[in-house]
Amino acid sequence: MERSDFERATGAHVRELCRRGDWTDRTFGMALGYYQANLAIVPAAYAFEFMLFCQRNPKPCPILDVTDPGDPVPRRAAVSGDVRTDAPRYCVYRNGKLVDEPLSITHLWHDDHVAFLLGCSFSFDATLSDAGIELPHMGGNKGRLSAFVSNIQCEPAGRFKGPMVVNMRPIPKRLVVKVISISERYPLAHGGPVHIGDPSSIGVDLARPDWGVYTPLAPDTEPVFWACGVTPQVVATQSRIPEMITHSAAHMFVTDLRVADPSPLT
Amino acid sequence: MERSDFERATGAHVRELCRRGDWTDRTFGMALGYYQANLAIVPAAYAFEFMLFCQRNPKPCPILDVTDPGDPVPRRAAVSGDVRTDAPRYCVYRNGKLVDEPLSITHLWHDDHVAFLLGCSFSFDATLSDAGIELPHMGGNKGRLSAFVSNIQCEPAGRFKGPMVVNMRPIPKRLVVKVISISERYPLAHGGPVHIGDPSSIGVDLARPDWGVYTPLAPDTEPVFWACGVTPQVVATQSRIPEMITHSAAHMFVTDLRVADPSPLT
Repeated sequence: MERSDFERATGAHVRELCRRGDWTDRTFGMALGYYQANLAIVPAAYAFEFMLFCQRNPKPCPILDVTDPGDPVPRRAAVSGDVRTDAPRYCVYRNGKLVDEPLSITHLWHDDHVAFLLGCSFSFDATLSDAGIELPHMGGNKGRLSAFVSNIQCEPAGRFKGPMVVNMRPIPKRLVVKVISISERYPLAHGGPVHIGDPSSIGVDLARPDWGVYTPLAPDTEPVFWACGVTPQVVATQSRIPEMITHSAAHMFVTDLRVADPSPLT
Repeated sequence: MERSDFERATGAHVRELCRRGDWTDRTFGMALGYYQANLAIVPAAYAFEFMLFCQRNPKPCPILDVTDPGDPVPRRAAVSGDVRTDAPRYCVYRNGKLVDEPLSITHLWHDDHVAFLLGCSFSFDATLSDAGIELPHMGGNKGRLSAFVSNIQCEPAGRFKGPMVVNMRPIPKRLVVKVISISERYPLAHGGPVHIGDPSSIGVDLARPDWGVYTPLAPDTEPVFWACGVTPQVVATQSRIPEMITHSAAHMFVTDLRVADPSPLT
C-alpha cells in the first residue's frame, strides 16, 4: 500500500483505512483537496482554557471543529468520522509526559473528553504543487518536512502557555512571494508563514529538527517557516495538564472539509 | 454632540466618551475604520458552551476577543478598554428575561464573568459607503437599520440554541453583487449576507422589525440580510441562562482593531 495510491482518495476513505489499522503512517500527500487536522483531546474541565488558547493563537491552532463533551464524532468536519480511531497514530500525555503512542484510543476515551480539530498545513501542499512549487515531501519526492520548537512564545490562556512549533519548507527564492500569497489564503491551514530566512532568529537550528529529518538546503533556496499544529503537544508538556491526547506528528485526521471551499465552516 | 462629529474618532475616543457617560446613543457611523463589537458576558461555568456556540455559528457570532474570567479588559481587541463601562448601554438578562438596561455594569461585574466580543456589521458600512453604496443610516442620512428574529436556526451547542437574528440593508438591485463581494471580505464583521430577496422565506415581515424602525423599500431596491450579533440575546432568552449581560442593540463596544487590516487577529 503506497501513499501515492491515495492521492485522489476522499477524506472518508483515508479515515476508514486508519480505522481498520490498514494505514499507520504519515498522511502528507494523501486525500489531496481535503483539510487534514491536528487533534487535541482534553478533559472538559480544561476545554474552555484550551479553546481560549486556540482563539488567541490562530496561526498554530486554527479551529476546524470542536466536539461536544463525550462525543467522538466531529459532526461539522467529518460526520462519518471518529476521533478515537481515524488518525493513524496518537500520542498520550499524562502530567506533561508522553506515555504512549497507540494506533487507537478507544480504550482511553471518557465521557468528559472534548476533541479539538485544528487545521494542518498539509492541506495547502497540493495547491502549492499545482502552482509549480516543488516540495520535498510531495509528488513522489522522498523528502520529509521537518519541525522545530521555536523561541516564538504563544499568547498564554490560563494554564496553557509555551513556545510555537514551526515547520519548514525549503522554497526557491524566486517563489517566496508566491508561496506567501497562496498560503495566506488558507488561514484554517495555518495561513501565511510566521518567518522567512535566518532560522537562528527564531531559535531554530535546521540541522537539529525536533520532528522529521535534516536535509541540507539546496542553493538559492530560502527556509520558510509556518506555525505548526504540534504546538499543543509542547503546550501539554509545559502546562503539565493531567491528560492530553493528540495525533502523532504528521499522522493526521483527514476531514471532509474541502480546500477549494473559501469558507468551509459556514 | 452629534454622531457626525465622531466619524473620524478613534475606537479609544468613542470608548472614553461612553465611559464618561457622554455618549449613550447608538454607534453606527462613528469611529469609521474600527471594528465595532457586540458584547456577551456569561458566568465562567457557561463560557465553554457559549464559545462552542460562537465557533459553530461564525456568521452571527464571529469572535474578536474573549477575556480571561474576571478580567474586564479585552486585551487583544482594546487594551485600554473596559467591557463594564465602554459600551453606551447594556442589557441584563436573568433566567432569560430582560431585567435592566443600564449605562454601566460595573456594579454587576463578578470575578467569574467572561466577556465575548463579537464583530458587528457596522464595521464594514463605511467601506460600503466608500464604494458608492448609499445606506439609510450612514453619511448624514436619517434612516435606521432594522433587525428581525428569523426562522433560520443556529447550530446548537449544549444549552445554547435558538434562531438567528438578521439585519436588513436595502440595496439597489444593480449593486447587490458588489455588496456581497465587499462584505464577504469581512468574516469578522459577519461576512457576506445570509439571505437576499423574499423576506418571508426566512420568516421576516419587513413591516414589523424586532429592533429598529420600518422604512418601506424604495423601488428597484433589494432587501439584503446579514447575520446579526444580537443573536446571543435571543439565545440567552431561549436557554434561560441564569445571567447574561450584553450591549444594547446597536450600542456597540468600539475596538482598536482596524477594518483595513486583512487579518486583525494575527
